[in-house]
Amino acid sequence: MNIITISREFGSGGRTIGRALAETLGYKYYDKEIIQEIAKQVNLSEEEVMKLSEENKATFLQMPFENYTGMDRRSVDVLRAQRQVLLQIAEKNENCVIIGRSGGAILGDEHPLRLFIYADTQTKLDNIRATQEKYANSTDKQIIRTMKRIDSIRAAYFELVSGEQWGDRNNYDLCINTSGCAMKNLVKPIADYAVSWFED
Amino acid sequence: MNIITISREFGSGGRTIGRALAETLGYKYYDKEIIQEIAKQVNLSEEEVMKLSEENKATFLQMPFENYTGMDRRSVDVLRAQRQVLLQIAEKNENCVIIGRSGGAILGDEHPLRLFIYADTQTKLDNIRATQEKYANSTDKQIIRTMKRIDSIRAAYFELVSGEQWGDRNNYDLCINTSGCAMKNLVKPIADYAVSWFED
Repeated sequence: MNIITISREFGSGGRTIGRALAETLGYKYYDKEIIQEIAKQVNLSEEEVMKLSEENKATFLQMPFENYTGMDRRSVDVLRAQRQVLLQIAEKNENCVIIGRSGGAILGDEHPLRLFIYADTQTKLDNIRATQEKYANSTDKQIIRTMKRIDSIRAAYFELVSGEQWGDRNNYDLCINTSGCAMKNLVKPIADYAVSWFED
Repeated sequence: MNIITISREFGSGGRTIGRALAETLGYKYYDKEIIQEIAKQVNLSEEEVMKLSEENKATFLQMPFENYTGMDRRSVDVLRAQRQVLLQIAEKNENCVIIGRSGGAILGDEHPLRLFIYADTQTKLDNIRATQEKYANSTDKQIIRTMKRIDSIRAAYFELVSGEQWGDRNNYDLCINTSGCAMKNLVKPIADYAVSWFED
């Protein structure tokens, strides 16, 4: 079984590349499906899961350990379910691409190909404006603030799960800078790289 | 003109990959040729150039600025010639692969594809023992000390030239972890990646 995990900076095009990679390689694609599955397991709506796993995560991680007992119990449930769902995906023994959720660290024993996708700020701003309507009326400064917030949540979760630093090259097999790149042109060579890498 | 520059951790296989990439793509390959050209320009032997550009570089960079006037003038000549030689290579207007010497930073205006090649310590130890006879009788600890010294010299030179941090993903277009990989299997997909990237 070949697993490709994708960590990415917000706005770098990691999700676009991941979806196209899965299509090119004929792999299963897991992204929102993970949220749906968590929702089922913890008996909450997808919106609640999103909120708890994204927004409250930061609060959770910034909290002194002795306060954990006082926190919203549902956050812990969601984080635990998230790990559980990833392990269940691996158990299916199918080739797949997994977006985010620290898949590379959680599924380390399965030796996934761990990609990290990143880009310069201008490229990320352009991508976000081009693909996410809700930022249409935001200033650059507002979007940059959101980028930083989301990336810092991703980093905190990764560090909690792995004890390692998010974005540190040593935690990935291939780090891809999409600055100024036409994403579609990168998919085929990344897919080739993956195939060669798994053959090894 | 397509230029591929390769920064690499000592022992990660960057040179091996660079040479194979040049062969696969039919690009010119610049590595030791740079030293030969510098030697000609500053009227020193290749050995002296190596010594001045590698070993004394570190001393040079650790020196307070006001002491520069007291340093071996030849070190400054070598560093200046090194930059000059890279610019002359770019002027030839030929597709090429350039190993080290902060080529990615010095030739930034030519928009090279900037690769960074790295690996975990065990892989680097294995590579070094397999390819460099002079370390045959060294202990792991001794080789690791050498790795650190050489990488810190490379980092210092890169930082002097670019004002940026060596190994920071933002200074490269593709960062490749060769840990546990058969190098020869990576060459073709990296070459494909390069072709797609230059087409962009």
